[in-house]
Amino acid sequence: MVDTLELIVEKVLRKIEEAKYIPIEASARHVHLSQEHVDSLFGKGYELEKIRELSQPGEYLCKERLDIIGPKSVLRNVAILGPVRGSTQVEISRTDSIALGVNAPLRLSGDLEDSETLFISCCRKVIEAGSSTIVAKRHIHMTPEDGIRYGLSDKQIVRVRVHSVRPLVFEDVIIRITEKSRLAIHIDHDEANACGFVEGAMGEII
Amino acid sequence: MVDTLELIVEKVLRKIEEAKYIPIEASARHVHLSQEHVDSLFGKGYELEKIRELSQPGEYLCKERLDIIGPKSVLRNVAILGPVRGSTQVEISRTDSIALGVNAPLRLSGDLEDSETLFISCCRKVIEAGSSTIVAKRHIHMTPEDGIRYGLSDKQIVRVRVHSVRPLVFEDVIIRITEKSRLAIHIDHDEANACGFVEGAMGEII
Repeated sequence: MVDTLELIVEKVLRKIEEAKYIPIEASARHVHLSQEHVDSLFGKGYELEKIRELSQPGEYLCKERLDIIGPKSVLRNVAILGPVRGSTQVEISRTDSIALGVNAPLRLSGDLEDSETLFISCCRKVIEAGSSTIVAKRHIHMTPEDGIRYGLSDKQIVRVRVHSVRPLVFEDVIIRITEKSRLAIHIDHDEANACGFVEGAMGEII
Repeated sequence: MVDTLELIVEKVLRKIEEAKYIPIEASARHVHLSQEHVDSLFGKGYELEKIRELSQPGEYLCKERLDIIGPKSVLRNVAILGPVRGSTQVEISRTDSIALGVNAPLRLSGDLEDSETLFISCCRKVIEAGSSTIVAKRHIHMTPEDGIRYGLSDKQIVRVRVHSVRPLVFEDVIIRITEKSRLAIHIDHDEANACGFVEGAMGEII
């Protein structure tokens, strides 16, 4: 049986409608370590143990956990994400930043100049992670193909509507296009709690 | 000297522009107690001691503090707001709710039916505050005069844009008109952290 023209049009319109929605992922606080800091905490040449792949290709959750230490408090059992990076980066929420007693700037991942300093502890060792700590700026991961499909380019700013019990529109959401990406809107736990985030929530680019 | 027509028009336009902006206040976790619960915790007929007036007329911060106890953790030194109410009401953020290990519903103040239960502790006494605990739904306090000025009525839903380092638009913001109000947008600390709230921030009704 062949679809009627009306049915085909309806299917195409539904596809267009669906395509506007992008999965939202809420990032918990976590640490990316440099090999130098891995060596200091766990011993020279230590390799972090992968226990679970994350949504972004190549990224994974490690078995090892850390404590992060600020002037006002300590957050225990914080996740380490692999693989190791050139510089150690600690990503916390604004709530965490206030609890720790620091003033972590709102930044895109990788932009660490003059960011906050925390101490990191594990295995009875403590290291200073200077200029390591940020509140991650919300962003959307996509591939160049996704970019073409949405008509968006790298670093473009969009608005994202979240339909939920606590609906809102995030403005100033930055597009990050890389070859190895999986389409996802990344927000932190403050943003997740403020927008009534639940597992499987979708955001609409408007 | 008399203003020129141009100057008058400019002044009027500026007033209209300013009038769209309403101060934002971020509410920290707090407890309103019933007299029965005040009696149980502090002794029969005890009167809470006012230490500071709050922005809403008649409401005040008390000297006494409480611990609130959930199945997963305890939040210490929580503020009590006076005067006493008919029922005890605990207002926490979603972050607090997760930390405490409860699932407090998103509600307007006063709407406590089937809300969460926590234990409250002070002075070596512990009481059960049944159906007491909510995450407060964001809202705007205004007087009937403000309502006329903004063309808004009680319970109307509006959207509020926050200009900040983390700009967003809160949707589903409810208008609460009472005779004794001071114009203010009330959000909780998750929402404050998600929208880059700083002291003195203003929201724009759109």
